[in-house]
Amino acid sequence: MSAQMNKNSSNIMALAPNTSNKRETVCIFGTGDFGRALGYKMIQSGYPVVFGSRSTQASSLIPKDAEVLSHAEAAQKAAIIIIAIQRQHYNFLTPLAEVLHGKVLVDVSNNLKINQYPESNAEYLAQLVPGAKVVKAFNTVSAWALQSGTLDASRQVFVCGDDMEAKQMVMDIVRALGLTPLDQGSLLAAQEIENYPLKLFPMWKFPILLSLGLSAFFFFYCLARDVIYPYVYENKDFSFFIAISIPNRICPILALILLALVYLPGVLAAIIQLYRGTKYRRFPDWLDKWMLCRKQLGLVALAFASLHVLYTLVIPIRSFVRWRLSGRIISQALNNKTEPLNTTNAWLSDSYLALGILGFFLFALLGITSLPSVSNNVNWREFRFVQSKLGYLTLILCTAHTLVYGGNRFLSPSSYRWYLPNAYMLCLIVPCIVLVVKFVLIFPCLDKPLTRIRQGWERNPQYSEQSNYIINKTAV
Amino acid sequence: MSAQMNKNSSNIMALAPNTSNKRETVCIFGTGDFGRALGYKMIQSGYPVVFGSRSTQASSLIPKDAEVLSHAEAAQKAAIIIIAIQRQHYNFLTPLAEVLHGKVLVDVSNNLKINQYPESNAEYLAQLVPGAKVVKAFNTVSAWALQSGTLDASRQVFVCGDDMEAKQMVMDIVRALGLTPLDQGSLLAAQEIENYPLKLFPMWKFPILLSLGLSAFFFFYCLARDVIYPYVYENKDFSFFIAISIPNRICPILALILLALVYLPGVLAAIIQLYRGTKYRRFPDWLDKWMLCRKQLGLVALAFASLHVLYTLVIPIRSFVRWRLSGRIISQALNNKTEPLNTTNAWLSDSYLALGILGFFLFALLGITSLPSVSNNVNWREFRFVQSKLGYLTLILCTAHTLVYGGNRFLSPSSYRWYLPNAYMLCLIVPCIVLVVKFVLIFPCLDKPLTRIRQGWERNPQYSEQSNYIINKTAV
Amino acid sequence: MSAQMNKNSSNIMALAPNTSNKRETVCIFGTGDFGRALGYKMIQSGYPVVFGSRSTQASSLIPKDAEVLSHAEAAQKAAIIIIAIQRQHYNFLTPLAEVLHGKVLVDVSNNLKINQYPESNAEYLAQLVPGAKVVKAFNTVSAWALQSGTLDASRQVFVCGDDMEAKQMVMDIVRALGLTPLDQGSLLAAQEIENYPLKLFPMWKFPILLSLGLSAFFFFYCLARDVIYPYVYENKDFSFFIAISIPNRICPILALILLALVYLPGVLAAIIQLYRGTKYRRFPDWLDKWMLCRKQLGLVALAFASLHVLYTLVIPIRSFVRWRLSGRIISQALNNKTEPLNTTNAWLSDSYLALGILGFFLFALLGITSLPSVSNNVNWREFRFVQSKLGYLTLILCTAHTLVYGGNRFLSPSSYRWYLPNAYMLCLIVPCIVLVVKFVLIFPCLDKPLTRIRQGWERNPQYSEQSNYIINKTAV
Repeated sequence: MSAQMNKNSSNIMALAPNTSNKRETVCIFGTGDFGRALGYKMIQSGYPVVFGSRSTQASSLIPKDAEVLSHAEAAQKAAIIIIAIQRQHYNFLTPLAEVLHGKVLVDVSNNLKINQYPESNAEYLAQLVPGAKVVKAFNTVSAWALQSGTLDASRQVFVCGDDMEAKQMVMDIVRALGLTPLDQGSLLAAQEIENYPLKLFPMWKFPILLSLGLSAFFFFYCLARDVIYPYVYENKDFSFFIAISIPNRICPILALILLALVYLPGVLAAIIQLYRGTKYRRFPDWLDKWMLCRKQLGLVALAFASLHVLYTLVIPIRSFVRWRLSGRIISQALNNKTEPLNTTNAWLSDSYLALGILGFFLFALLGITSLPSVSNNVNWREFRFVQSKLGYLTLILCTAHTLVYGGNRFLSPSSYRWYLPNAYMLCLIVPCIVLVVKFVLIFPCLDKPLTRIRQGWERNPQYSEQSNYIINKTAV
Repeated sequence: MSAQMNKNSSNIMALAPNTSNKRETVCIFGTGDFGRALGYKMIQSGYPVVFGSRSTQASSLIPKDAEVLSHAEAAQKAAIIIIAIQRQHYNFLTPLAEVLHGKVLVDVSNNLKINQYPESNAEYLAQLVPGAKVVKAFNTVSAWALQSGTLDASRQVFVCGDDMEAKQMVMDIVRALGLTPLDQGSLLAAQEIENYPLKLFPMWKFPILLSLGLSAFFFFYCLARDVIYPYVYENKDFSFFIAISIPNRICPILALILLALVYLPGVLAAIIQLYRGTKYRRFPDWLDKWMLCRKQLGLVALAFASLHVLYTLVIPIRSFVRWRLSGRIISQALNNKTEPLNTTNAWLSDSYLALGILGFFLFALLGITSLPSVSNNVNWREFRFVQSKLGYLTLILCTAHTLVYGGNRFLSPSSYRWYLPNAYMLCLIVPCIVLVVKFVLIFPCLDKPLTRIRQGWERNPQYSEQSNYIINKTAV
Repeated sequence: MSAQMNKNSSNIMALAPNTSNKRETVCIFGTGDFGRALGYKMIQSGYPVVFGSRSTQASSLIPKDAEVLSHAEAAQKAAIIIIAIQRQHYNFLTPLAEVLHGKVLVDVSNNLKINQYPESNAEYLAQLVPGAKVVKAFNTVSAWALQSGTLDASRQVFVCGDDMEAKQMVMDIVRALGLTPLDQGSLLAAQEIENYPLKLFPMWKFPILLSLGLSAFFFFYCLARDVIYPYVYENKDFSFFIAISIPNRICPILALILLALVYLPGVLAAIIQLYRGTKYRRFPDWLDKWMLCRKQLGLVALAFASLHVLYTLVIPIRSFVRWRLSGRIISQALNNKTEPLNTTNAWLSDSYLALGILGFFLFALLGITSLPSVSNNVNWREFRFVQSKLGYLTLILCTAHTLVYGGNRFLSPSSYRWYLPNAYMLCLIVPCIVLVVKFVLIFPCLDKPLTRIRQGWERNPQYSEQSNYIINKTAV
């Protein structure tokens, strides 16, 4: 709504000539798309804008209310100069060093590749013009978003710089444009800030690669058992299982394994802390990384669980299932017999469905509370309650769902084809380990020392001297 | 949570008499609901408040800690005066012009209709009291929300005004009350700001009207084919199809058409840019507007897709479907024959279900990423990846779902009743056009010049002179 | 993403020694986990930090760039002192009273229980060091969240204090650390702020307890009718109904009752206002509280509705349902007869399913718009439209769904077992009352005076003198 208002109001606003302006002039070097869009937005917010350009002839593309001067002239008019020019052309600034002395230079540039240059563009700029105060900002905002006002993507502007006052001035401009500045510290953070817009879901890479790998494995496993085996031994063509039956085996398996992998690192961390007797030593790097992508692992697991629900609910509409059902009924009718109700079967079928429904319901609840706007509205205790207590309950329900689904098939030899057990038996290994270890950790003889360790107690305090300063991420 | 805290703490807080107050006094003209609620909230946040009123006798409704004086006396005590009075009564301010000279007047008024007066209330106020600095603010907040602290609706306060310093002072108060100020520029934006709270989903109007129109058309189309035709020629009463069968035809059709309409303007824009050889000329107005409501179009499409999923999943519970199924089985049983498994049918049925499930899953993912709090946490590249790459994949899957559903019925003459093809054949037209054109645009001979045009290159630079300053919204 | 960036950048940032720091030194008393984490974060944001500690020997755990001094020496170096020490040890501050005179003391402590001490820790601190300006802040943030940068839980920092300037200084630090300060008023609010992190979904307590109570009642009611009755009179074992059939009766009943209870207080409030002829008198306390938890009631109702949908959609997969269906078909086949299509039944079945689908769809829409990030993007009129108009439409559809489901069973004596009516008949009572009263209130003879009352008109103005200042929460 707000975005749309900006859009509309910019149409009716004649760039406010009668505004009694108290804002300081801003200079923009470069009249490309981004420079112009930024200039336009600033004029709208009440800043007088002056462009520095090689050719000072007014172009129809430059906002009417902005002046266009030579670089040196423009720079003299303002305390803040935005460098909306590509890094390759930065060396034209060297001759201007004197004019730029003491000015705030805002580096808005981006690269085409992650870590394209040894040092960040902003640091390179600071080396070229040593007398200026360089601030990195605005690189995460696109010209199109500035212009159209439809900031559907992020409104966050990362800002960093070595001079506090200069940084503050830039952050004030960011706020005036309706964006949210986020202070990232000194100019050393510029490299990270420049890499940020080039990243494509970095936290999701591991969970997605892992689930693709596991999916491929279980696909061929199920293919062998459910399609190739009957084709070889019974000469039946069940190739259409590839569309629904096999995906509907893979999805619940992956959902359960990934959900268990969300809670495994917390359990491992507890064991490590108990063994070391202190929380003041860093965890191994792989465990640290694993812990930081637990949320993503959980959401991928939820995606697989949702697909499993959809695949399961369409079962009765499937032409194959209808054919099999009517086949059974007809053979009963022809044999003139009616089966009595098998209460055990009814119990098994109903309870694994009920467990699955409740598990999925809690799982979806976990997913909803991990939405940024929801998790921002709960306190720490509530967040831990949901993610830990409800999380374990979900894991227990989903594991029970799979166990009851298996029923007494676990022992029946007919379910072993080519000596391969049913795929869902394999997927029970990780969750069962997690639940058993967690159960053991609840015993007072282990829980008490663990709680004390997490409150800062150390079994052998001298060990911690070797460690760096770190509060280990304990299990949530 | 926070809202609730505010509520509770206001109960225990005796309006803080012992606060060592450094905040400046604020004056409020008008002791109606909104003036009082604002005054109450300001006192809570540490501002001394003085009310200006015709009758200066203390009313039990006015916060205890606030003074009530005559308008002139009250105005003298503060630099900021909030005019919590209806526009009709503004002319009482004219005699006070001298006292109000140089003061900041905050117009908080709203109208009953969009564009009720030729100029905005704030501009009218500025004309009445030319010596004052008028700022528009607070009109989007309700007295009830201020009072109860349950700001479930927006916390955003749009602020505009010609005097930068005055605007800054008002924005500081807005922040102190726990609200978020959004600077909308000069006082010319006041009209828009006053219209804002009167608007009812303006961006949704076009998508919803379009979908209602299409729904009506397809409803009568399906009614003719599926209810009236069998009634006329076969004397069968299928009127109950109106409840589920026909909606379940309309929903997927509309979902697919609307989804294709999300991607059509991007394709049209690319063609226009290729034809013109520049991006620096405005698109036709209809295309601009269409592009701005793509998100809403997509969400309406998702709503129809969700309904389609629900309607489809209840199929096996429908009494009619059970009757038809049992009828078929009984006739087979009575004829003493069992149909063999038709593998082609099993493949067709399973694969269109699988395509539909995957398409809907991706569609739901697109919907989730369009939630403000999620899209605020992704960078521009990630947002484009989801909305463009995943979006097209969704469109491909949904189109394939419809094509496979049709199967070989496209050519069968029996599916043409009254020479009318099945409704789902009609709905394939738009998505197929979009996909074919998009496929053509991927070819290097078209993609290369298009990329260059979007980077700023122009085939005939002189043409752009005519154009206004605009960065055309290119396809996301 | 941002959180992750913070994480990574902190790895590459050597705590910025060459930063031309203009930020004021901050002193931290206490070198425990929280003090260190806060110090580390502040150094990162450019604040020079000095620790006050009993033992001034440098520990490897303390950030390298921070000084460690005795308490008195450290306090002299800074205007702001953060007391990261437990309340029990506050009395060591008494001898330091002279050094602390005029300083800003930030109380960051938390308790273990709600209202553990008669006065809040911050007020206790203010009593101990009367010359200092005490500000409460940071208690809602955890050391782990500060350290890891993964602020998945709230970024909100509640701040309160009697001195405006001191509070402003602390709020500036909060902002510099990338957190959101929320001013809660004077130090009297400290008790609430200290209780906040100990609370576990306080607004959800009533809705959840209510729904648990109702669930238990309806569980035993249905158990008696559907399991015990057939066991006693027909000797049939339907115990497996406990898994799905009975939950699938309880869920829709609770969803409907709770949804009606969302709209009942609004209707009651209207009656009270009409009767009193004014809106300026407080509602009874229970009605106030009820109104404040309507959102939570609605969301719990939505949870039950979602479970009902899942339970209903698995019906055709249930082994019992398949057995019953095939039993019916076989008996028909054996009797050599085919039932004709019962159009009335088809109509009833299809229309109650369609009503349920539409009701659930609107219900889900209501749930989505109550997400904080969505409701923040709509204006007051839109929010009211969704929550009131769409809400009532949802209630009407869901009530109609239940009525049509019942069909003509309401009058059939066979549906009364042990004189107990079907459970869904009981659940219709509340929604029908709400809808009837709401319908009556729409009549002009009642609607007109009500609207006038809500605009501030009073039938007997003198009555309002008795009342406290309050704008009654009128029905949304």
